[in-house]
Amino acid sequence: MTIIKKQLDPIFNPKSLALVGASNNVLKWGWIIQHNIMWNRYRGRLYPVNRSENKVLGLRAYSSIKYVPNPIDLAVIVVPAQSVTQVVDECVESGVKACVVISSGFKESGQEGAKLEKELVNAAKRGGIRVVGPNCMGVLSSPVSLVAVMSLIQLRPGPVSFISQSGNLGTLAMWNAMKMGLGFSKFVSTGNEADLHCEDYMEYFGEDPETSVVACYIEGFSDARRFLRVASEVSTKKPVVVLKGGVTQAGSRAARAHSGALASTEGIFTAAFKQSGVIKAESEDELVDYAGALASQPLPKGNKVGILSLGGGWGVLASDSCEKHGLVVPPLSQEAIDKISRVLPPYWSKGNPVDTVAKFDAATLRVCMETLLELPSIDSMIIAGFGVYSYFADEIPKSHLASKEQAEPFRLVKVVEEEVAKNIAESRVKYGKPIIVVTRLTGEESSSVMMLESTGILPYSTPQRAAKALSKLVERKRLLESHRKEIN
Amino acid sequence: MTIIKKQLDPIFNPKSLALVGASNNVLKWGWIIQHNIMWNRYRGRLYPVNRSENKVLGLRAYSSIKYVPNPIDLAVIVVPAQSVTQVVDECVESGVKACVVISSGFKESGQEGAKLEKELVNAAKRGGIRVVGPNCMGVLSSPVSLVAVMSLIQLRPGPVSFISQSGNLGTLAMWNAMKMGLGFSKFVSTGNEADLHCEDYMEYFGEDPETSVVACYIEGFSDARRFLRVASEVSTKKPVVVLKGGVTQAGSRAARAHSGALASTEGIFTAAFKQSGVIKAESEDELVDYAGALASQPLPKGNKVGILSLGGGWGVLASDSCEKHGLVVPPLSQEAIDKISRVLPPYWSKGNPVDTVAKFDAATLRVCMETLLELPSIDSMIIAGFGVYSYFADEIPKSHLASKEQAEPFRLVKVVEEEVAKNIAESRVKYGKPIIVVTRLTGEESSSVMMLESTGILPYSTPQRAAKALSKLVERKRLLESHRKEIN
Repeated sequence: MTIIKKQLDPIFNPKSLALVGASNNVLKWGWIIQHNIMWNRYRGRLYPVNRSENKVLGLRAYSSIKYVPNPIDLAVIVVPAQSVTQVVDECVESGVKACVVISSGFKESGQEGAKLEKELVNAAKRGGIRVVGPNCMGVLSSPVSLVAVMSLIQLRPGPVSFISQSGNLGTLAMWNAMKMGLGFSKFVSTGNEADLHCEDYMEYFGEDPETSVVACYIEGFSDARRFLRVASEVSTKKPVVVLKGGVTQAGSRAARAHSGALASTEGIFTAAFKQSGVIKAESEDELVDYAGALASQPLPKGNKVGILSLGGGWGVLASDSCEKHGLVVPPLSQEAIDKISRVLPPYWSKGNPVDTVAKFDAATLRVCMETLLELPSIDSMIIAGFGVYSYFADEIPKSHLASKEQAEPFRLVKVVEEEVAKNIAESRVKYGKPIIVVTRLTGEESSSVMMLESTGILPYSTPQRAAKALSKLVERKRLLESHRKEIN
Repeated sequence: MTIIKKQLDPIFNPKSLALVGASNNVLKWGWIIQHNIMWNRYRGRLYPVNRSENKVLGLRAYSSIKYVPNPIDLAVIVVPAQSVTQVVDECVESGVKACVVISSGFKESGQEGAKLEKELVNAAKRGGIRVVGPNCMGVLSSPVSLVAVMSLIQLRPGPVSFISQSGNLGTLAMWNAMKMGLGFSKFVSTGNEADLHCEDYMEYFGEDPETSVVACYIEGFSDARRFLRVASEVSTKKPVVVLKGGVTQAGSRAARAHSGALASTEGIFTAAFKQSGVIKAESEDELVDYAGALASQPLPKGNKVGILSLGGGWGVLASDSCEKHGLVVPPLSQEAIDKISRVLPPYWSKGNPVDTVAKFDAATLRVCMETLLELPSIDSMIIAGFGVYSYFADEIPKSHLASKEQAEPFRLVKVVEEEVAKNIAESRVKYGKPIIVVTRLTGEESSSVMMLESTGILPYSTPQRAAKALSKLVERKRLLESHRKEIN
C-alpha cells in the first residue's frame, strides 16, 4: 500500500465516522451534514459528538470523541475554529485516522485565524494524521455511500472523482451533473489546504481503482510543479480534466482574494496542461461534459463522426459544431446509402448527417445507426434530437384531454423510444465506438433518456456541447497514442 | 396598417381558427395540435374539420371548412399533401384570411412534392392569402394563447418572438427556454417557405408592439439581401439575435440536404450581421441567453461590472468570464469598501467581486448590492450563486429526518432568500442597471429563483453564460449609440 493510499483511505473509505459538532439545530452545519450522511445511508458507523445533547437526529450522541467506545476512522469537525485544535488533539488520542475540518475562521479570516490554522496543522502532524480543509465543504465517497458535505446532495455513484478548491461551486456543479446523469465516485472540497493539497488528492485518485476520471476546479497551486508532475503521471493512467479559475487579470485578482491563489496567466496553464496531458475545461459545464464523456464512452480511433439526426436542424448544428472542434463529418459509402435507403423514405438526405425525416421506429433507427457504426470511415457517432416521445407519453395524460385508453397508443411510441435507448446502449458496446446523445430533455422528464443514463451514457443538451465533449475523447486518444510512441 | 401587418395578423392574432385534419387518433398530428390548442386555452373560436367524425376531442367537427357557419381567420392544415391545394381553394372560397400548412410531402420530398407545392402557392396567390410552411411545425402566439405547434408546449408569455427554419430544433429550444424562465410572444416554424419567408416574419415582428426582441434560427436565405435590409431596419428598433446554421463546410452540406440552403461561410455572415446590427449566437443556448437578457434587462451605460458572489469560486469564474468577453471588473472606491465593511465580516475581499463570505441575510445583501449599483463606475451587475436555500427548505422535509417543526427555521431562511429576490427585482428598476443572476437551480427547484423569473429576470446557469449575455447588452448599447451618432 502506498503512503498516500494509507493516509487518505480513512477519508474516502472510513468504516466509522464521528461528526464533532453534530447538532439538532437545522440551521447549523452540524445538522445538515448529519442529515446528509443519514439520508444517503452511510455504510459505516456514525457517531455524533455534541457537548450537551444525548441524541442528535435520533442517534446516540457523545459529549466528546474520547467517549466513543469503538474505533473511529474519520472525524468530520464542524465546531468553532477556537476549539478545533483541541478536538484534533482528542482525535489523535482516540486513534482517529484522519480529519475533515469544515469549520471556517482560519487563515481566510486574518492573522488570528492563520495562527489557529498553524496550531491545527501542528496538532495533526504531531499525531501523524492528515487533514482535509479547514474552511471546506466536506467530502463525498460513493463506495461507502458517504455524503459528508454541506450541500443537499443525493448520491449518484459513478466513475468520476472531483477535487474542488471552491466548495460552493464544486458541490453545486456536482449536484447539477448528478441530476443530468453523471455519477461520481468521490468528491473533496479542499478548503484552505492547510495540510492536504489538491495534488495529494490527485495522487490518491490516480491510484484509486474506483476512479476512472479525475476532474478538478483549481484556483491556485501551493506547488504548481508537483501538481503538474502528479497530473502528468495520473493522466497516463486515466483522464484528468481541469477547470482553472483565475486565468484573467480580473479573475486572478478575485482568486487571490478568495483562496490566496497567486496570479497566473491563461497561456502558461494552457501550455503546462497540454504538456502534462491535462484536458482543459473553460467552464463548469465543460468540466462536467468532458469528464462525463471520458467516463462513459470508449475512445474513438480517430476524428470522423457519423451523425444521426431526428430533425434536420440538429444535423446542421451538429455538423457545424463538429467541424468547429476539429472533427470530420465524412461522406457515406454508396453501400451505406443503399442500406439506409431501404428503410428511409426516398427523399432522405443520402449523406452524413443521416436525418431520419420524421420516421420513428426502432428497427429503422437501428439500421441507420448500425450502418453508420459498421463503417470503418466512422469512428464515433452523435445522435441528436432524442427523447421527446417518452416525455409526450407521460405528459399528455396530465392535460386530461385524452382518456387513459385514448392515450394508450402514445404509450406504445414511448416503448419504441425506450427500445431505441436500449439499442443505443447495446451498439456502443457491440461496436466499441462512442455514441453521444443530444437531447433537450433531462432524465427526470423523459423515461427513455433516463434509460440511457442508467446504462452510463451521459446525454448532452446541445450539439455544440456534444461535439466539444467528443473532441476531447479524440484528444485523449491522441495523447495515449503519443505516450505509446514514446515508450516504443 | 402596413401590408405585412394586414397579411400576417390573421396568422398571429386569429379570432377564429379551423384545424383541417383534426383527428381523434392520438398518434396523428391533427390530434396533438388540437390537444395543444385546447390545453393552452386558445382565446378565439376553434373549428375542427374532419371528413368523417362528428366530434374531435369533444368539440363539434365539420366535414369541410365550407360548412363552418362562422368567419374563419386562420386555417391550420394537416391533411396529406395531395389534398392541401383543394383545402386552400376551399379556404379562399370560405373567406379564410391565412393558412398554416403543417403537412409534409412537398418540395422536401422530391419532384412530385415540388409540383404540389407550386400548386399550393398558386392557389393561395389566386385567393390573395398568405401561407406559412408547408412542412413546418406550426405557429404560437401568446396574446391569443395560441399554441398550434406539434410539440407539447405549455405557454409562457413574454417579449421574445422566434423565427425558426427548423421546427424540431426551434420548438424544443423554445420549450426549454420557457422552462428556464423565458417568455415568448410569438413563434413560427417557417418550413419550406413556399410563400412567406423568414424576412417577412422579421418585418412583421419588427412592427409588432408585443415583440421586443426577435430571435432567429436560420439555415439559408431565399433573398439574403432583403433579410439583411429588413434585419438592419428592425434592429434600429429592437434587438435581433440570429443563430446561423450551416456556417462550416460540413454544416452547409447538411443544411443543403435539410432545407436546401445554399453554402455560405461563417466569415461572410459575421461581417454582414455586424453591419446589420444583428447579434450573432453560436448555439441554441446562446440564442436563448442573449434574447433573454435583451428582453429582460435595461441596457448598461458601459462595460463595467460589479460582481456579488455567494461563494468565492463564483466570483473568480465570473471575473474570468467578464474579462474574456470584453467586460471590465473595476476596483471599488474606498467609500464603497467602507460601506460594505460595515455589514460583512472584517476578512471580506475588500474589492470587486464582493464575496459575501457565507453571510446570508437580506439586509446585508441589500447593502452590498445597492452600494455597487450606486457607483457611477459600475454599469451592471452579476449576482452569482443564488437560490440554494429555498431548494434546501423545500427538500429537507422530504427526507423525513426532520419533523415539520424542526425544519421550520429553514423555512425562514427561504423567506430571506425570497426577500433577496424581491430586492434584486426592485433594484434593477430603481437603478436602471442590468442585474444578471447566476444559479444552478431552475425555477421549478427553487421558489426564490421562480420569484426572480416572475419579475422577468431570466437566471443563467453559469457565470460564463451570464457574462456572455451581459456582453451582448453592451454590444446592443454601442450599436444604438452609433446609430444616434449617425443621425446627429
